[in-house]
Amino acid sequence: LVKQAWLNGVFLAADEAKLSPFDRAFLFADSVYEVTAVYDGRPVDLDLHLDRLARSLRELGFTSVPDRAQLMQVHDRLIEDNALKEGYVYLQVTRGAYGGRDFPAPSVERPTYFAFAEARALIDTPTARNGIGVITVDDIRWARRDIKTTGLLAQALAKTEAKRRGEDDAWLVGSDGFITEGASANAWIVTADDKIVTRDLSTIILAGVTRARLATSLAAAGLSFVERPFSREEALVAREAFATSATTLVAPVVRIDGVRVGSGLPGPVTRRLQGIYYTAIGADPGKAAPWLTEES
Amino acid sequence: LVKQAWLNGVFLAADEAKLSPFDRAFLFADSVYEVTAVYDGRPVDLDLHLDRLARSLRELGFTSVPDRAQLMQVHDRLIEDNALKEGYVYLQVTRGAYGGRDFPAPSVERPTYFAFAEARALIDTPTARNGIGVITVDDIRWARRDIKTTGLLAQALAKTEAKRRGEDDAWLVGSDGFITEGASANAWIVTADDKIVTRDLSTIILAGVTRARLATSLAAAGLSFVERPFSREEALVAREAFATSATTLVAPVVRIDGVRVGSGLPGPVTRRLQGIYYTAIGADPGKAAPWLTEES
Repeated sequence: LVKQAWLNGVFLAADEAKLSPFDRAFLFADSVYEVTAVYDGRPVDLDLHLDRLARSLRELGFTSVPDRAQLMQVHDRLIEDNALKEGYVYLQVTRGAYGGRDFPAPSVERPTYFAFAEARALIDTPTARNGIGVITVDDIRWARRDIKTTGLLAQALAKTEAKRRGEDDAWLVGSDGFITEGASANAWIVTADDKIVTRDLSTIILAGVTRARLATSLAAAGLSFVERPFSREEALVAREAFATSATTLVAPVVRIDGVRVGSGLPGPVTRRLQGIYYTAIGADPGKAAPWLTEES
Repeated sequence: LVKQAWLNGVFLAADEAKLSPFDRAFLFADSVYEVTAVYDGRPVDLDLHLDRLARSLRELGFTSVPDRAQLMQVHDRLIEDNALKEGYVYLQVTRGAYGGRDFPAPSVERPTYFAFAEARALIDTPTARNGIGVITVDDIRWARRDIKTTGLLAQALAKTEAKRRGEDDAWLVGSDGFITEGASANAWIVTADDKIVTRDLSTIILAGVTRARLATSLAAAGLSFVERPFSREEALVAREAFATSATTLVAPVVRIDGVRVGSGLPGPVTRRLQGIYYTAIGADPGKAAPWLTEES
């Protein structure tokens, strides 16, 4: 359970955080959010998250602009108060509550701000070490997946179905047969001819911050990758697969719809990218993830 | 402003109604709702609304079943306490709050119930009398429009854009060029060859309660109608157009994207259907809507 929350400028016990059911996040999913990883007591790529938050708000026509310095302080304070070494900070901005229910956005905006932090191992986890199994489900989400809104019901249903089938997560497949992304992660494969592939950016998927950082880091390491759509069928015969997100970082995907990916174990490219990513966020892979070199 | 609310079994002042920001409606739009018209102090077709609510919950895999008798009593009490003659009751059921944020549905469900009532003229309104102008926008919603969820951001954006352009509402157009429905109403036209047409039911649109009741009533009056897709282009050259919803009942649409529909005034078929619908819910059109016969 989460212990502390920040709500509209006030730090308080999480179970004392209360807001109006007339909040537009509650009535209309009129709200956006970010989840920022915390490693070694520091937020990871908070600048990129706050950039994306600002973009989400702009795309939805929010007129108020969050105080960036304040949000950075809130992250720091939540990390400190919760003595967070590894974990994440959640931040949500809604279009606020107005004492009634009216679809059009209000002319004068009073947004709601909500945040909390939670400790969670990010690197030395069963997910990172052993990989995960995913199911594929139809991508039934709205058309603007580039905006990180709390309209997450399709994703929640996909993850509920994955859990029901004894798997860890879901990858979403568009009506054209191509995988868009995971329910809360970007999807990557290593193809039969050893290309690292992930979906190109558009309104079809979210521009993941972990995706962006990994892309920069692997390029810096002299590796190349290709941004293009890939189908469920291509993923099923891929050598390796993995997913990137703020809370799983680089997660090997070892099973898709019950079919083993490659050997069924995290592959060498995925292991190398995990190491590159861990290094990029300031970790020493040899200490933080000794299993990276133990297996192969 | 709404004065009174019902939250998890308790009637209280609306501004005292508070819930946890960990509620899944707030975090994930994991929630459904109904809006039931109130006419002459009685809820209109509450049975159909509660049937649809139960269906929405089933489709989303909710395991708890609302107490139907209790929900009916809540409607009665809200109507009484607010001395409602004409207006609506809003009811929302969410998958509840669990003190944290985890996508998959909880195994043991503790749903949140929220309701309120608001007085609003339904029949003798500028909308019903003079009609409304609508804009058309791309239908960017998720694929399960048959489930009445609070994932309403696309609809809120559409209505915000309509307001910005000085119009009253928005009709949504699928990527195939066919109108699906209004942002919070079903869409109907009267074609050049005098057919009454509305979209056939599927996962593409919501099965409107007002739509269903009007369909039954017009059939009883010896009128026929056709359920099929119609395009924006067909709507632009229609003789008449109108929208049905719980809060606007039968609303003439006299302008689409700035183009006059027919004469630009509510047409004779729409007027007849308004009369039929008002009668069906227990009104005397001659008294409640004298303008029905004043013009033509």
